[in-house]
Amino acid sequence: MFVTLEGIDRSGKTTHAALLAEALGPETKLLREPGGTSAGERVRELLKNPELELTPKAELFLFSAARAELISEVIAPARDRDIDIVCDRFMDSTVAYQGAGRGLGVEYVERVNDLVVGSCVPDLTVLLRIDPDLAAARDGTADDRFELEGIEFQRKVAAAYDELAQRHQRIEVVDGSGEVSEVAQRVLQLVESR
Amino acid sequence: MFVTLEGIDRSGKTTHAALLAEALGPETKLLREPGGTSAGERVRELLKNPELELTPKAELFLFSAARAELISEVIAPARDRDIDIVCDRFMDSTVAYQGAGRGLGVEYVERVNDLVVGSCVPDLTVLLRIDPDLAAARDGTADDRFELEGIEFQRKVAAAYDELAQRHQRIEVVDGSGEVSEVAQRVLQLVESR
Repeated sequence: MFVTLEGIDRSGKTTHAALLAEALGPETKLLREPGGTSAGERVRELLKNPELELTPKAELFLFSAARAELISEVIAPARDRDIDIVCDRFMDSTVAYQGAGRGLGVEYVERVNDLVVGSCVPDLTVLLRIDPDLAAARDGTADDRFELEGIEFQRKVAAAYDELAQRHQRIEVVDGSGEVSEVAQRVLQLVESR
Repeated sequence: MFVTLEGIDRSGKTTHAALLAEALGPETKLLREPGGTSAGERVRELLKNPELELTPKAELFLFSAARAELISEVIAPARDRDIDIVCDRFMDSTVAYQGAGRGLGVEYVERVNDLVVGSCVPDLTVLLRIDPDLAAARDGTADDRFELEGIEFQRKVAAAYDELAQRHQRIEVVDGSGEVSEVAQRVLQLVESR
């Protein structure tokens, strides 16, 4: 099973991706986007560097490069061997962040995504929904180019995720507020129900 | 006028792009791909590094990221101000190298290109045609990931360029063999005739 976790910044994706992978067993591949390959990690450095000026389209195609690499080097081979995969962010992030947040347009980014992922679409996508104001109040330093965009940007991204969840059957919404252990339980139940 | 120079490795593009830009006058913008912006130069480092493993799709999307950045930061603003632009490689390179050379398919890469460049298509593309064996015999060290692919790869790329020139009216073929000054004259005459 190929499961992706999505949500706005500080919605708990990274924590819950790790907890889910652990619950699914030691064979499970835990991945993050952008990254997960040597080229992907190099691209990640560029994308995370808030000093480097990048237009929204360049951002989109850098994420696409890292994703293409991750698919052919890691995800596709793991699927072929029936290994479970849990990925912290994937194709829906670019629709929400670059399509809606940066204004490239949801339809435009979905066309790019189709060319990048082909048939490598997640079996299940868990959208950790949390109020942007609540997420902003969580501990952590805003240090990358997206978190630095502020609350209005996060609200646009959150709205785009909700719209995606209505349109795609593979996306299931999970309430991301409350104790970590409670949310982890909700995520695991959802995955097991599939 | 937005002019691009295309051709296989060591066909003389870089030399003739510089000579053409000089002939067109000091206002002319001389660009190269990938590169020409701070993000583009960072992407160039990744693409030129033969140690870094990259799948063909990742290559394609890295070139696309650098191109998107170059268009919105440099080419589109220059066109708006009626400044001449000479660019050493552009969208046809990805069709020839990643589409044909790497086997992603010409049609697939052309669909990606449409999403990347939009209406920012060159007014004229000069294809410097040279026999791959002749090009290989020219001085220089094979030090990047494409030149290291060898002569068979260059032949595939050359054939794809010829096919592109037949299909697109904006692409004009110039004989790239002979003295530099002769070839430069042919290129300049072609540009002036437009």
